[in-house]
Amino acid sequence: MIPKGFLFSTAEAAIKKPGRKDLALIYSETEADMAGAFTTNRVKAAPVKLDIRKIKSGKGQAIVINSGNANACTGEKGLKDSGDMARFVSDALKIKSSLVYVCSTGVIGAPMPMHRIKAKIPALAANLGESSLEDVAAAMMTTDTYPKIVKKRVRAGNKTGVIAGICKGAGMISPRMATMLCFILTDFAVDRKTMDRTLIDAVNRSFNRITIDGDMSTNDTVLMMANGALGNRAISERSSLYPVFNKALHEVLYALSELIVKDGEGATKFIEIEVRGAGSKADAEKAAFAVANSNLVKTAMYGNDANWGRIMAALGYSGAIVREDKTDIYLGKVRIAHKGAATGTEKEATRALKKKDIRIMIDLHIGGHSAKVLTCDLTEDYIRVNADYRT
Amino acid sequence: MIPKGFLFSTAEAAIKKPGRKDLALIYSETEADMAGAFTTNRVKAAPVKLDIRKIKSGKGQAIVINSGNANACTGEKGLKDSGDMARFVSDALKIKSSLVYVCSTGVIGAPMPMHRIKAKIPALAANLGESSLEDVAAAMMTTDTYPKIVKKRVRAGNKTGVIAGICKGAGMISPRMATMLCFILTDFAVDRKTMDRTLIDAVNRSFNRITIDGDMSTNDTVLMMANGALGNRAISERSSLYPVFNKALHEVLYALSELIVKDGEGATKFIEIEVRGAGSKADAEKAAFAVANSNLVKTAMYGNDANWGRIMAALGYSGAIVREDKTDIYLGKVRIAHKGAATGTEKEATRALKKKDIRIMIDLHIGGHSAKVLTCDLTEDYIRVNADYRT
Repeated sequence: MIPKGFLFSTAEAAIKKPGRKDLALIYSETEADMAGAFTTNRVKAAPVKLDIRKIKSGKGQAIVINSGNANACTGEKGLKDSGDMARFVSDALKIKSSLVYVCSTGVIGAPMPMHRIKAKIPALAANLGESSLEDVAAAMMTTDTYPKIVKKRVRAGNKTGVIAGICKGAGMISPRMATMLCFILTDFAVDRKTMDRTLIDAVNRSFNRITIDGDMSTNDTVLMMANGALGNRAISERSSLYPVFNKALHEVLYALSELIVKDGEGATKFIEIEVRGAGSKADAEKAAFAVANSNLVKTAMYGNDANWGRIMAALGYSGAIVREDKTDIYLGKVRIAHKGAATGTEKEATRALKKKDIRIMIDLHIGGHSAKVLTCDLTEDYIRVNADYRT
Repeated sequence: MIPKGFLFSTAEAAIKKPGRKDLALIYSETEADMAGAFTTNRVKAAPVKLDIRKIKSGKGQAIVINSGNANACTGEKGLKDSGDMARFVSDALKIKSSLVYVCSTGVIGAPMPMHRIKAKIPALAANLGESSLEDVAAAMMTTDTYPKIVKKRVRAGNKTGVIAGICKGAGMISPRMATMLCFILTDFAVDRKTMDRTLIDAVNRSFNRITIDGDMSTNDTVLMMANGALGNRAISERSSLYPVFNKALHEVLYALSELIVKDGEGATKFIEIEVRGAGSKADAEKAAFAVANSNLVKTAMYGNDANWGRIMAALGYSGAIVREDKTDIYLGKVRIAHKGAATGTEKEATRALKKKDIRIMIDLHIGGHSAKVLTCDLTEDYIRVNADYRT
């Protein structure tokens, strides 16, 4: 089940350790409409700077992706290298260079091994169609332990279109998207402005609501390609099809963001944190992220320790308006704290924490706003992965 | 070398594991002038709420301290318990209850074992003078691995006064002071307003510049007692003695804050992060704290990995104004990045990281402001200590 009109290819350019694919190409047989969302880190990788310029045209036909090197903090040479990657691909595919997007993920601050990449690009173009979308998802992994793919079929009258998404995550995942790369492909035709708005909205409700370690990367990119191969009339916000399409797109992005958290570096647990009853939307988000980013909360979850005091402490420094004597905390279905004090249910709560999926619900009892954030626990393996990442 | 007129006592009240002292008393033979600084967490432990009220009088004579239980998130009962602790001590010492301060550190959200504490207080008062300041520092440890004591002699004409400080730290240490308790005792007489200002200034330049895990506690407290036993004329900002006294007090607090970072939970390395050339003081601090709190930077330091890209990424999301192509990064004396790009000195930098004391210097080359923050690395032992803290 693949959206029509897309072809894929992968190659091994020895950017990562030998024996692993690290170069991939996504190609639409016709020029596609494009939308994108990018890191808000002030330090942006060279390919991100390039793509931010290109996306203004709203058009594209190919995305070349490498893993193993982020081409970030690489100065003028990095910018030239990204531009060169686009040109090599456009030459090989015989399309305009402006239609080729470039995405890189991996180590920051190291120069790109351009000779090895350049050498592989002709074969990459020639072999289009010989790899699957799954192969592309695998080739862009860094410390991910599995490829991440989500697809949805969407019926439109007597036709059926597909929205397919792949992404890579692992560490350096935080609000505002992180080290993540994500590609959404669809054979629907979609009005460009509609696609822009719908994508940003879906990103805000998915990738911008997850955190692994609070570190935000220089490379995060979401690119969406709609090639219209289905032959439908372009979907706009007034189309009768729009609600269904919008819902499916949201579901694809949300499911991908869940996969990223579940594959967080060293993670053994998936943690959903919901804050209710906040005085404002911003307060709900601040409170939820403070809890989600607390190393002490994350290690307690890892240790099955119903140490709700650490949650209270995080709420207290979150910047949100919090009244200790109004706050209720639930671990799973167990109300471990009521009006800021213990309820004597530690045994039941400890049992709830022994699951792989943990839900923390906090009711501030101040106002009517809520927010949900997904995260994972913090384990010795996170330390190991990140202390040894480049060795 | 102890400031004159102070007596100490410790006891074992079975709040911590058996066999460890967990109750301590600091007593001045005469009523002392007091100043204090407290956590800015919105969720404040009961004893902190109590002490914030008491410190308004600027007077005190005794501090009772327990470890093992923070008496935080304990509702109305917690407030009553703190008040009771002060009363039990004031009854035993036959001084006014308003002169007794209470400090607690340990687990959050558990009720205080008041019957065991109450039972020990008469002996605690009766045994004053049988323990040393070192014993008090040891009795207030939680996950600290050693007691923290710093003393300075200050000459005033033909007399010599002493400033002595003890503190406890470990995890949950972040800007705005954290789980820390700190007591500064001096036999100098100090003008109250001068003491207030000088203490706050010294705290801002020491404890508020350290971070272990970015988590801020509900209990952090610095209390200073000046009992005037030396018989000097009260030091004010216009005294000729003031510069010397001020300098010594700063040195005591800074040395204590260094001891806390060196004893950070699981820490194997002491890391000083200096940001120079920032556009504003606030930017310098934001940038330094973002780097200091980055789990990825901290694990890289643990792994002797000169992964300066993670430092750039942290600067980029710090909120400070950063220009990638102006930024220089030094690891030790090695300039690992110049104008945002690698300098090819990774081997030398890796060697610099193999030391126990690491210095990261970042020059943003934007303005003239700087800030220094102390932190430690993030290790598997941090995870172990905090996943098992209560088990």
